[in-house]
Amino acid sequence: MKKKLLTSEPPKNCPGTNSEDAGKSEACQGCPNQGICSTGIPVAPDSDMEAIRERMSTIKNKIIILSGKGGVGKSTVSTQLAFTLSRDKNIEVGLLDIDICGPSIPLTLGLQGEQVHCSGSGWQPVFVSENLCAMSIGFLLPRADEPVIWRGPKKNGLIRQFLREVEWGSLEYLLIDAPPGTSDEHLSIVQLLKEDLTGAVVVATPQSISLLDVRKEINFCKKVGLPLIGVVENMSGFVCQHCKQKSSELFTSSEGGAERMASAMGCPFLGRISVDPRVGRCTDSGLSYVDAYEDQPVAVQFLSLAKKVSDYCLGKKTCGQQENLI
Amino acid sequence: MKKKLLTSEPPKNCPGTNSEDAGKSEACQGCPNQGICSTGIPVAPDSDMEAIRERMSTIKNKIIILSGKGGVGKSTVSTQLAFTLSRDKNIEVGLLDIDICGPSIPLTLGLQGEQVHCSGSGWQPVFVSENLCAMSIGFLLPRADEPVIWRGPKKNGLIRQFLREVEWGSLEYLLIDAPPGTSDEHLSIVQLLKEDLTGAVVVATPQSISLLDVRKEINFCKKVGLPLIGVVENMSGFVCQHCKQKSSELFTSSEGGAERMASAMGCPFLGRISVDPRVGRCTDSGLSYVDAYEDQPVAVQFLSLAKKVSDYCLGKKTCGQQENLI
Repeated sequence: MKKKLLTSEPPKNCPGTNSEDAGKSEACQGCPNQGICSTGIPVAPDSDMEAIRERMSTIKNKIIILSGKGGVGKSTVSTQLAFTLSRDKNIEVGLLDIDICGPSIPLTLGLQGEQVHCSGSGWQPVFVSENLCAMSIGFLLPRADEPVIWRGPKKNGLIRQFLREVEWGSLEYLLIDAPPGTSDEHLSIVQLLKEDLTGAVVVATPQSISLLDVRKEINFCKKVGLPLIGVVENMSGFVCQHCKQKSSELFTSSEGGAERMASAMGCPFLGRISVDPRVGRCTDSGLSYVDAYEDQPVAVQFLSLAKKVSDYCLGKKTCGQQENLI
Repeated sequence: MKKKLLTSEPPKNCPGTNSEDAGKSEACQGCPNQGICSTGIPVAPDSDMEAIRERMSTIKNKIIILSGKGGVGKSTVSTQLAFTLSRDKNIEVGLLDIDICGPSIPLTLGLQGEQVHCSGSGWQPVFVSENLCAMSIGFLLPRADEPVIWRGPKKNGLIRQFLREVEWGSLEYLLIDAPPGTSDEHLSIVQLLKEDLTGAVVVATPQSISLLDVRKEINFCKKVGLPLIGVVENMSGFVCQHCKQKSSELFTSSEGGAERMASAMGCPFLGRISVDPRVGRCTDSGLSYVDAYEDQPVAVQFLSLAKKVSDYCLGKKTCGQQENLI
């Protein structure tokens, strides 16, 4: 088996979608796009792009939250980061959930059962507080336990609608909570927002298996030219509530955890978030952990993460141009 | 906003792919399939289906392992279930990884760096032991940290190839480890294997947010007619290694956990797997937990899970027909 068969290169001898031979040359046989190419309809410029650029122009920083693997706490980190950033009531924060098949944001922000309202100027995001709002497919489903059984193109269509239709208004930060992996949703958001994306925060846990997937995610960012704000390590050691021992590495790593990996890959490390069952409880109930447990060590960790993210955004603006850290 | 816009119905007034108006009627405007339909090439019967049926005919039980959310330990459960079932050396077990963008099976079975060999009769799975073998995109990648940046159709193509080309030989069990969610990979495997699938095991954790997604997964199985073998609850309470207290519910639930949810949804409950950091360590190192820690409580839990799964499969065969438990 030739290994290079599986890399993401264009098909060999592909004549290109705008060529006269599109869909007709020998190289087109068996290509999944042959049907589309052979229609001879030239690929028109994407008319949505201008509308999306217009919508996004009122948002200063667009930050995508990624993880290689699921269940590392990506939605938890997105949610608590959004809550923490919005503690300054002068700062407007939005949270966009592009995990189309597994939306969690309505639950984690305490907005279950809320609906999206439509006006002449667009879809209204759902507000958690005066300066924190969100959009998710979860607000558009008839029932919370209804599965969204959608293949890629339909998911991409909704992400496009979110970017084009949602009337965020003026925001300092838009956090974009992505599903795990490197597939349709990720490619769509990168292609639709392009250099307008401020950067990516990658969430990891100390497990080897999670770190393997984080390396892939960092390489994804490099391949698509997405600036890396940094890696944050979640579930970093567990303090037993009985004996108060900083205990049993819950998810052990033989490799020195996310910090060593980030350093080896030349990627900034944004810190650790320790395991605290109250983080999960707050997130399940739509509450801000930092507001509820301000003096706890994990609150300090969330505040530090928010500071580093906002410093990155400020630095970017001071420089007058987007800095690619990788 | 009309909520029903987001259900998975066919486009309104769609003339159907075999109609003369396919791709040309008014309803086709803006449909993502218009290009393919308008070529006028009728959709031929799927020639792969016979080849897939032939390949699969030597496999007695095909079990898909699902989870609503990522990171609930789906690959861990798949791997340790495969190890546990294969403790009887007379039973041949295969593990197929269809998590195309986040394959973990090469790592969890200790097979990193292994390659797939091709012969005249098909792709050879990689063997862990005499009676346990596996197939994953991880064996086909040039580097383990290379991201697989693929949209849906390309992922579906590889799953099809796995089912058509892999020479499993005679197997008692083929476990299929799916990515989280309900999208391309899930639809493809269900559509390609159809009633040949024995059933699904759904992995959950006690967290509310995980349970929400599990409900979706159960509803997915109901919608596509996939029999449910049952729900298993992973990470079920943590024993501190210092004070030996069955401690701090790590991921608490206000809803009585997966058992109550399964019962409410009329779905069998297959038991709990407690948190034990050694499960993660074994899985990160490609080792069988049950072989290494035979006398530990969690080993008893894995053995019980394997027994319930094999009982289900035996029961199915005794009945002479597939029983749909939902």
